[in-house]
Amino acid sequence: MNTRLDEFEAYRLRMNDRVMEANHLGIKRFFNLDSKAYEDGALPASTKELLGLAASAVLRCNDCIDYHLIQCTKAGFTDEELYEALNVALIVGGSIVIPHLRHAFETIDLLRDRESG
Amino acid sequence: MNTRLDEFEAYRLRMNDRVMEANHLGIKRFFNLDSKAYEDGALPASTKELLGLAASAVLRCNDCIDYHLIQCTKAGFTDEELYEALNVALIVGGSIVIPHLRHAFETIDLLRDRESG
Amino acid sequence: MNTRLDEFEAYRLRMNDRVMEANHLGIKRFFNLDSKAYEDGALPASTKELLGLAASAVLRCNDCIDYHLIQCTKAGFTDEELYEALNVALIVGGSIVIPHLRHAFETIDLLRDRESG
Amino acid sequence: MNTRLDEFEAYRLRMNDRVMEANHLGIKRFFNLDSKAYEDGALPASTKELLGLAASAVLRCNDCIDYHLIQCTKAGFTDEELYEALNVALIVGGSIVIPHLRHAFETIDLLRDRESG
Amino acid sequence: MNTRLDEFEAYRLRMNDRVMEANHLGIKRFFNLDSKAYEDGALPASTKELLGLAASAVLRCNDCIDYHLIQCTKAGFTDEELYEALNVALIVGGSIVIPHLRHAFETIDLLRDRESG
Amino acid sequence: MNTRLDEFEAYRLRMNDRVMEANHLGIKRFFNLDSKAYEDGALPASTKELLGLAASAVLRCNDCIDYHLIQCTKAGFTDEELYEALNVALIVGGSIVIPHLRHAFETIDLLRDRESG
Repeated sequence: MNTRLDEFEAYRLRMNDRVMEANHLGIKRFFNLDSKAYEDGALPASTKELLGLAASAVLRCNDCIDYHLIQCTKAGFTDEELYEALNVALIVGGSIVIPHLRHAFETIDLLRDRESG
Repeated sequence: MNTRLDEFEAYRLRMNDRVMEANHLGIKRFFNLDSKAYEDGALPASTKELLGLAASAVLRCNDCIDYHLIQCTKAGFTDEELYEALNVALIVGGSIVIPHLRHAFETIDLLRDRESG
Repeated sequence: MNTRLDEFEAYRLRMNDRVMEANHLGIKRFFNLDSKAYEDGALPASTKELLGLAASAVLRCNDCIDYHLIQCTKAGFTDEELYEALNVALIVGGSIVIPHLRHAFETIDLLRDRESG
Repeated sequence: MNTRLDEFEAYRLRMNDRVMEANHLGIKRFFNLDSKAYEDGALPASTKELLGLAASAVLRCNDCIDYHLIQCTKAGFTDEELYEALNVALIVGGSIVIPHLRHAFETIDLLRDRESG
Repeated sequence: MNTRLDEFEAYRLRMNDRVMEANHLGIKRFFNLDSKAYEDGALPASTKELLGLAASAVLRCNDCIDYHLIQCTKAGFTDEELYEALNVALIVGGSIVIPHLRHAFETIDLLRDRESG
Repeated sequence: MNTRLDEFEAYRLRMNDRVMEANHLGIKRFFNLDSKAYEDGALPASTKELLGLAASAVLRCNDCIDYHLIQCTKAGFTDEELYEALNVALIVGGSIVIPHLRHAFETIDLLRDRESG
């Protein structure tokens, strides 16, 4: 069962809707720019998701890590590839990243469970 | 002329030697692990350098940005690809990254000058 | 019902009392200085609370965001004004702030519910 | 004489032009959103510049502090008001902000010299 | 009863095992280096744990604070000594550290309860 | 010759005087609290300086690192002890700390030159 991930996705969706509903032009445009930053371009979308994952890990944001791991597994990265990206984040960001590494490994396992669900 | 880059590389080399000379086992092992994190593995070395660049940009470290840009240009990334990686860092990290974006663009230009030198 | 906010406020109050009880002179003085920083002075208290909110948002601290939102709504700021302050924080701090933006919007809604009792 | 500020502004202008010239749509849109975030809206532009200053100070970015101090003095804030905003940043961000406080006070003095120039 | 601490320790142990099981050489070596950094050397292990505590507090990581508090109480530090170390972290890191100070005081109390358990 | 350290100390002294001269009560009290945090208490002053050094290193502030290294060498710490403290900071904070490690090693050498001056 994927309670933690399901709850995260439901909350994220509900509150993003709430934020959009507030109709603040700047915030709406930022959310739009944010989506576009991960589309195919000079770099493929998959590489950009991996960059988003590494950036989220060194900045130590579990929600952002979960979001990018969801995207990265959809993009087809293997566990070994995700571990490698997380290792770069661990080296750059240090042991303070370790609690988020534990979280990330748990999320990867939950995502694989869901896939094989 | 590439004074800024040349000075950075000379200082980096000189002080890394000084740090190694101190012969602290933990620090030496960390430097070794740091090098290994960017070698070919489940992900190619070039992708890892791009991850290092994005992580360095969101953590706002000019020396780290310069180091990874040197490696990224050696790995063959085009300007457009580097701009895309920096754009992801800008979106993730916000306007506080802009001074480092300016620095990164200047470094890219210096590296291209050196290549065509 | 405002369970999340009520729990935050109860925990905050109880643990602040615990910290004060430890009677560490430096910590007590810091708490005192912290309170005074948001009093009317050359800038009105309300503006300072808004500064506290923006600083808390870019530093990504949900408890601090909640505390300053409580103070900001007491000071009479409208939702639109709070969204504007949060938009500045979003631009400065980037998408890594988004999970805290979701949290802040939820807190604003909880605070308005509480007001309308 | 204002060498430090003049050099900062010249470099900032030159490199912003360079970044725009690269013509990356995402980066250009971000720069545009960034400008718009500080325009009059539910909050006056001057308050937003003060928020930008406090956010820049707690995130410890001298270039960003200088930019927002330039805007804040144009908006008419007095020295006392700027010190109050910086004091909030100091309390929120701690002694690690002090080197940037020193820098900010120097910049305020340089800006007042220029005004009275 | 020590539910919060027990849960943290069980989760930490379980997920560290999971991370080790993934068998990524870089990550395993990092975990090993991390352990060694706190062993007796030119500085005693106890002083290094106190450094780990202060570093964790200014970087605002509750899991890391809890881990180092467990080690620090094992090393024999008194409450007064731990408050002093946390006060340094509070001054260096500012009021954004306060939520973590509350957490740390609660953890210290839980650890003392367990000792006297 | 110690130009870099001399310039840092002269600038620090001059600008601290300037900040005090502005006579902002909150800022003055913060500076006072900051000094007191490193005085002998339940922990000796020397240990607190070492905590200040580690905190400054993981927060990546060269001026703060230099200040605490000056205090730490006055307190009698050997090079090996300082390297150990910096190694803890490197492990906690990761490779993003390396540019500051280089700076710290250079500062230690400058301080030893000055001592043997």
